[in-house]
Amino acid sequence: MLGLATPTDDGWIDAAIADVASLLCDHAHCEMKAASNAMSLAVRHGDRPELVQALTALAEEELAHFRRVHAILMERGIPLGNPPVDPYAATLRRVAHELGQFRSPLVDRLLIGALIEARSCERFRILSERAPEPELRTLYHELLASEAGHYRVFLDLAIAEAARDGIDATAVRMRLRALAAAEGSIVARLVEEDERATVHG
Amino acid sequence: MLGLATPTDDGWIDAAIADVASLLCDHAHCEMKAASNAMSLAVRHGDRPELVQALTALAEEELAHFRRVHAILMERGIPLGNPPVDPYAATLRRVAHELGQFRSPLVDRLLIGALIEARSCERFRILSERAPEPELRTLYHELLASEAGHYRVFLDLAIAEAARDGIDATAVRMRLRALAAAEGSIVARLVEEDERATVHG
Repeated sequence: MLGLATPTDDGWIDAAIADVASLLCDHAHCEMKAASNAMSLAVRHGDRPELVQALTALAEEELAHFRRVHAILMERGIPLGNPPVDPYAATLRRVAHELGQFRSPLVDRLLIGALIEARSCERFRILSERAPEPELRTLYHELLASEAGHYRVFLDLAIAEAARDGIDATAVRMRLRALAAAEGSIVARLVEEDERATVHG
Repeated sequence: MLGLATPTDDGWIDAAIADVASLLCDHAHCEMKAASNAMSLAVRHGDRPELVQALTALAEEELAHFRRVHAILMERGIPLGNPPVDPYAATLRRVAHELGQFRSPLVDRLLIGALIEARSCERFRILSERAPEPELRTLYHELLASEAGHYRVFLDLAIAEAARDGIDATAVRMRLRALAAAEGSIVARLVEEDERATVHG
């Protein structure tokens, strides 16, 4: 679904729901990092007004999600704590680099953003069906549509940015497939190695 | 007004409206920096849930303001460009440090946030009356109430945080007055030295 090459392994959900408090903390930090990442991409590309508008609108949504998840933490008396170690996004960026430089680093960055949103969306769908409490199933059901929308925002921006550089949409989709294959290997390895309850682990 | 020790010098408005394009770019960047600053304070204080909620709500508003100002830049074909040099906030933090360490660095940081919002509010009021176009007078009129609200958010958080450390509200208000006196000197010097059109210059 949504450009992913590999579905999430069944083992992930067991780790995710074994420690709902850690999952919710990790999720809150993921929303915050997504907002910061979108804002920093926007500021670095002030010469692309459509990209700036789209990414700051997306950041606003991520912040609203952060506050929603954080309100659940507050109700449950769970401290947010410091951002947990999150090897997923950093590994994905490194592997993209190892795949060989794409003709536009910004297009690559946008495609990576699209894949991160796609994976969140896929996992929120699983959580919307299998989370242990109705409150959490509702939460994840409501958030997953928004993650799918964010996937689309990043992909559309990548295609538009590529077009400016004379790269056609087919080349962008090929690159997306290569990155998706790498992303699938990363999450499969993380599910095996990392038994913490995380969104992308 | 709002805790400030010194009103803005008449010279500032002339520089500000002499180059509306630069003023709007600087303003957009100020909103973005305010959002980032609030988010980074929130993430670093994950053990203060009320502070996290208040500052991320504030960041969302700052992002919405950023998009509104940025939309005006787009309509006018003005590129956002890179963040301009902005000595105001950095000088204010340095001067606060030179005043002597307050008993709580977080309270100091929140008071500095309050003063930055207070100065924005004061200047938005001037712009709401003296900006050269009705569209800009309306913009600044609508934003100034929100800046006043943000001043209140920072001040209330500072007082609540101080109370946790056994510092009473009177001591916090005395510190605010000392910081406000320093802030007044900084803006007076910037108005003399810096002839660019900026929100805080």
